[in-house]
Amino acid sequence: MFEYEVLATQGRARAGIFTTPYGDLETPVFAPVGTQATVKTLTPAQLDELGATLVLANTYHLYLRPGDELVAEMGGLHRFMQWPRLLLTDSGGFQVFSLAQTRKIDDDGVTFKSHVDGSTHRFTPEKSIAIQENLGADIIMAFDECSDPNEAAYSQIAMERTHRWAERSLKAKTRHDQALFGIIQGGVDPDLRTASAEFVSSLPFPGLAIGGLSVGETKEETYAMLELVNSILPESKPRYLMGVGTPEDLIEGVRRGVDIFDCVLPTRLARHNAAFSSEGRLNLMNAAYARDEKPINQDCDCYTCRTFTRAYIRHLIVAKEMLAGTLLSIHNLYTLVNLVKNIRQAIIENRDWQAEKWLLDNRE
Amino acid sequence: MFEYEVLATQGRARAGIFTTPYGDLETPVFAPVGTQATVKTLTPAQLDELGATLVLANTYHLYLRPGDELVAEMGGLHRFMQWPRLLLTDSGGFQVFSLAQTRKIDDDGVTFKSHVDGSTHRFTPEKSIAIQENLGADIIMAFDECSDPNEAAYSQIAMERTHRWAERSLKAKTRHDQALFGIIQGGVDPDLRTASAEFVSSLPFPGLAIGGLSVGETKEETYAMLELVNSILPESKPRYLMGVGTPEDLIEGVRRGVDIFDCVLPTRLARHNAAFSSEGRLNLMNAAYARDEKPINQDCDCYTCRTFTRAYIRHLIVAKEMLAGTLLSIHNLYTLVNLVKNIRQAIIENRDWQAEKWLLDNRE
Repeated sequence: MFEYEVLATQGRARAGIFTTPYGDLETPVFAPVGTQATVKTLTPAQLDELGATLVLANTYHLYLRPGDELVAEMGGLHRFMQWPRLLLTDSGGFQVFSLAQTRKIDDDGVTFKSHVDGSTHRFTPEKSIAIQENLGADIIMAFDECSDPNEAAYSQIAMERTHRWAERSLKAKTRHDQALFGIIQGGVDPDLRTASAEFVSSLPFPGLAIGGLSVGETKEETYAMLELVNSILPESKPRYLMGVGTPEDLIEGVRRGVDIFDCVLPTRLARHNAAFSSEGRLNLMNAAYARDEKPINQDCDCYTCRTFTRAYIRHLIVAKEMLAGTLLSIHNLYTLVNLVKNIRQAIIENRDWQAEKWLLDNRE
Repeated sequence: MFEYEVLATQGRARAGIFTTPYGDLETPVFAPVGTQATVKTLTPAQLDELGATLVLANTYHLYLRPGDELVAEMGGLHRFMQWPRLLLTDSGGFQVFSLAQTRKIDDDGVTFKSHVDGSTHRFTPEKSIAIQENLGADIIMAFDECSDPNEAAYSQIAMERTHRWAERSLKAKTRHDQALFGIIQGGVDPDLRTASAEFVSSLPFPGLAIGGLSVGETKEETYAMLELVNSILPESKPRYLMGVGTPEDLIEGVRRGVDIFDCVLPTRLARHNAAFSSEGRLNLMNAAYARDEKPINQDCDCYTCRTFTRAYIRHLIVAKEMLAGTLLSIHNLYTLVNLVKNIRQAIIENRDWQAEKWLLDNRE
């Protein structure tokens, strides 16, 4: 049902195709985040036009609003949000640990209060899979616990729980048209990461995800963990680095063998008037752009850069017009989606892609 | 430079073409309002796709932000906002009287404080024309004073001032590629409206506008004034009914010989989660739509209705997602733009268009 074919490699970097019943996914790929069944401010038509092929939606948010059973009644998430390409849902675990108001973790699951209305809910691996089966994305995730990377003792407890939950997630699954990915945890401890990579890759998951990175550790630690984990994971399965997505992270991630990325950064930056460019990250509210007739980025072919000046976008920001967020989201998402697409093409043609390094100027 | 040709009539209703250097305008036409050089939440591409051919922008707002001189430096409003079809700017008068914080009117002009930062400014007919020449729309308006329709004594003063300002607006004009329209005032007093229609249509304006209606009077008074004024205005010039635009108003306006309409209603309703439909006006936040798989309006061919269910739009509203406003704006604008287009086609084909009456269910 699910196959991953490596078409070309360059060092550890790989270009491949992940086959699913709903369609093929070319990797490496950057997935925009559509938290509440919408990539903020964009229509699916705009998302398609900017080249997105995979969108991530959040299980925690959709479970609370509008409810996974309602989405199932409406024909599933593809039909509900009218996104004709591939969808991925996370397990809800990360949001329960980061957003929910109070939570109580035990070996069976997590009890938490909704950040929307304070009501009490409980997620277990079985519940997370049931919700994700109702939502009906093409790629779904095992329920996991993400620990603080700087608390090694707790990292081990969280990792071991994640392993038990991975087995229970596999058992709970009833649909055969969804690829369930296992998640590797272990914080920044090399021994724990090694153990987690070995254990999770021993289970019959069609894809593997690396969780718990970019949550407070240094870039060096992130990259070291990536190198370690990817040296253990099988070449025959796609690797998804969860929630990571500065331009630098994408480049360094692909270089270390990552195939799938997602991140809220492009749309969050857009809401703060910021944009990626070959001159570095720009804040378009800056008065310096009031009469600037250039596009955000001269080298960019997105709708925003093909059409509008920095002066116009600054005017929209100052006048508090929502179109500013839309135009900046289009540009930022296009930049990351196409950065990864261009790297993929370079890997296939065995070209050097260090040129993409300009995006390092956009580092945090 | 400007010509208005009547292609067909049905009673007082007419279908025509207004020729301008920038392009032809098919009338009757409904113009979406792009107050601050953007029709709220929509890209120009979305606006074009829904069939808009004329957009109104507000002189008062653009003078304050980003400034008409900046817009001129950026190549004018067409280029600044990247709207490839026709543009109309109002004179700024209505906003000065309705939005500005304090104002002092004399025979020469109006001194007012900005609603943005409280700074003091002065508009005169000459200043309004200079600003509109900087903005560079295809149709511009004479500076006028809109009075309260229920204060007859003041209506006369405002009307007489509007007439002097109409003459001064004509004299102030230096560009030949913009059609300057004169504005008829006179409140709801038949004698004043008659005098104003006769006076303003005696001046060499290529088009005439009816101002000061839909500002507090009854529908019956509006329609009576329209019938009176249009019986006086020459057949050879386009007639623009300013700021009026419920579906009922459009139908009754065309029937009484109006060619051009604009109104913020479709986008304002969108921001309040409301939509036109053949079942009447709907509020999509209503829980009744939570599982409703129908489009907003079954008979509508807009992107929103072709693509999304009421259930999805309600979810976006409840989840406070901006896409809700975009999708509702597309639908509401499409509805009015195409209502008027369909009436135009019916006039040309000499078909009955009472069928469009369904939209009366959306009356205020």
